[in-house]
Amino acid sequence: VEFHGGNIFDFENEQLIDCSANINPLGIPLCFQEALLERMKEWTYYPDRKYRSLKKSIACYLGLENEEWILPSSGAMELISIAMEAYPFEKLLLFTPTFSEYERKAKQLKMPVERIPLSERDEFQPNLEKMIEKVEKDSLIILCNPNNPTGVLVSTKELLVWIEKVQHKGGYVLIDEAFIEFTDQYPRTSLIPAGLSLDHLLIVRAATKFFGMPGVRLGYGVTRNAQWRESIQQRMDPWHIHIGAVIAGEVIFHDKEYIQFSRQWIQKERLYCYKELQGISALKAYPSQGNFHWIRLLPSAQMDAWELQQKLLEDHILIRSPQGFYNTDSYFFRLAIKNHRENQYVLHFLQKKLENKKGES
Amino acid sequence: VEFHGGNIFDFENEQLIDCSANINPLGIPLCFQEALLERMKEWTYYPDRKYRSLKKSIACYLGLENEEWILPSSGAMELISIAMEAYPFEKLLLFTPTFSEYERKAKQLKMPVERIPLSERDEFQPNLEKMIEKVEKDSLIILCNPNNPTGVLVSTKELLVWIEKVQHKGGYVLIDEAFIEFTDQYPRTSLIPAGLSLDHLLIVRAATKFFGMPGVRLGYGVTRNAQWRESIQQRMDPWHIHIGAVIAGEVIFHDKEYIQFSRQWIQKERLYCYKELQGISALKAYPSQGNFHWIRLLPSAQMDAWELQQKLLEDHILIRSPQGFYNTDSYFFRLAIKNHRENQYVLHFLQKKLENKKGES
Repeated sequence: VEFHGGNIFDFENEQLIDCSANINPLGIPLCFQEALLERMKEWTYYPDRKYRSLKKSIACYLGLENEEWILPSSGAMELISIAMEAYPFEKLLLFTPTFSEYERKAKQLKMPVERIPLSERDEFQPNLEKMIEKVEKDSLIILCNPNNPTGVLVSTKELLVWIEKVQHKGGYVLIDEAFIEFTDQYPRTSLIPAGLSLDHLLIVRAATKFFGMPGVRLGYGVTRNAQWRESIQQRMDPWHIHIGAVIAGEVIFHDKEYIQFSRQWIQKERLYCYKELQGISALKAYPSQGNFHWIRLLPSAQMDAWELQQKLLEDHILIRSPQGFYNTDSYFFRLAIKNHRENQYVLHFLQKKLENKKGES
Repeated sequence: VEFHGGNIFDFENEQLIDCSANINPLGIPLCFQEALLERMKEWTYYPDRKYRSLKKSIACYLGLENEEWILPSSGAMELISIAMEAYPFEKLLLFTPTFSEYERKAKQLKMPVERIPLSERDEFQPNLEKMIEKVEKDSLIILCNPNNPTGVLVSTKELLVWIEKVQHKGGYVLIDEAFIEFTDQYPRTSLIPAGLSLDHLLIVRAATKFFGMPGVRLGYGVTRNAQWRESIQQRMDPWHIHIGAVIAGEVIFHDKEYIQFSRQWIQKERLYCYKELQGISALKAYPSQGNFHWIRLLPSAQMDAWELQQKLLEDHILIRSPQGFYNTDSYFFRLAIKNHRENQYVLHFLQKKLENKKGES
């Protein structure tokens, strides 16, 4: 079963505006395209098994002196998967709804899962204190920050205090910062470097998502925990990161212009979309620090997200259905932030569909 | 510890002729380079989680009607790794020396390993009957065919009879055909399609090795065994194969010219190298069906492979030391077949180093 956005292959329409996947619409950085051309010959080689230059580039981007703490991976998901099996965790603790792959992997590992629902009344802010009560020795908490699909960001300050408490009870925390570069206050919003003083913490990042090319499959993590890190490293297959991802990782982090434009775009368009969404009476949009909004259809919409998805497909717009997310219902959907023209188009038809329905009744 | 060839990153000399890695020296197919340029935009997307077009292309290459039996993977190693953990195998049976990663993975899974040494007296032909004696219910045999590093090929006819016997005893077989396209009689040497009548068999192939670009990381497997296949599929992370590998898999198999040139090259150069190696009195080279030769230094060489490796580095030649291979000794090394000029150069210095030594004594 497909539980993800971005699955354009199930839809035959080539003109689709894909608002189901969270991708930087600025597209592929020129620096990567150029490097790929110049370094075409490198596909001939097996990658460096130790990924030395890649680690160096990531360390430089993160302002870290210690390259040894860095775990590059073939997409963030590979690292999360392996991190979950690399230590004998007793159970997985999640705030839900969240990215469904954590739970898929737990199921595969036969790891019990306990969920604390994110409540709409709290605007989906996670109840960190309640989570502490559930933590036991060798529990693993995975927290996506900002969270997918709610867009809620927990502050670094709160997290540091909280993780120390989890650690004190013998639990471990994996913070998935896949969307962290999209947040307004980045890099202050990231646990890198402050979290590197905590021994029971692994911070995971998607490298290529912010850079508009998730097809490259590059991620990385940082932890000071040598035991966890070495166990992860041992489980990674040799040459698991392909040459194109190595090339990407060596160039994109230096592309200051792309980074700056992306941050300008996301701040401006997120504000624009949120404001426009607030103007549509049949829905409630929640403030987000990701490149997407989590939206609930109100009773006045007289339809659920599945029906809306079908209706918007008529206008070549694909929204993310709530399928696969726990502790949510069929009235929620996720809407990615695209470029300005596409956002205008999408918001126009979103409003139209919801108002037409009202007209019908 | 590094147990592989192709590890040029440990050696700083850029002019190195790398005879330690088994790569098609024809380089990167033009069709891939062109497709990568034309389809640059596709890095923007997440790959199709079901890898439909990739499976179709592989099925077409293999002449198979049933795409469902195909398991594409991020390099052959990912598939071998996951196949080993996707079923509760009781033990791993190997003919050694062979590719060291099978054993590394078994160790990680705490799976016991039993080895049957390949004997020089038998010219490294595996003793298939002896292996049958060791097979128990849920044993897994991995056989690399032709074998790395010995180059020995077991015929399809022998294998089919043998695998049926293994199956009869409740055992399973994984045939690693990473080098199969280099064999003289390919495709008759492959278990695809004949082996697809056997339920306890998985055939694994490296897709990009023959096409000179192992940096792409693409592999695939075929099995009729639905249980094993589904268990493997469930363990694969979403989007585990990157877009560049998808593009490669969609174009390279149709590049008849590249395939033909590669086969002409390997047949001609393998014959040439083997003949020349036989002319060097201080070593014994074994006939090979791979793109490499397995070679023993004779007592008259008055040095082991480590010493030879050091000496050849002076001439910018890197040979594969016996490190990491079981049931072998320090007098063996593996020599990759390169293009004609490089082969001439390598053979010249190989002879010179071995004869100089004799002169010294």
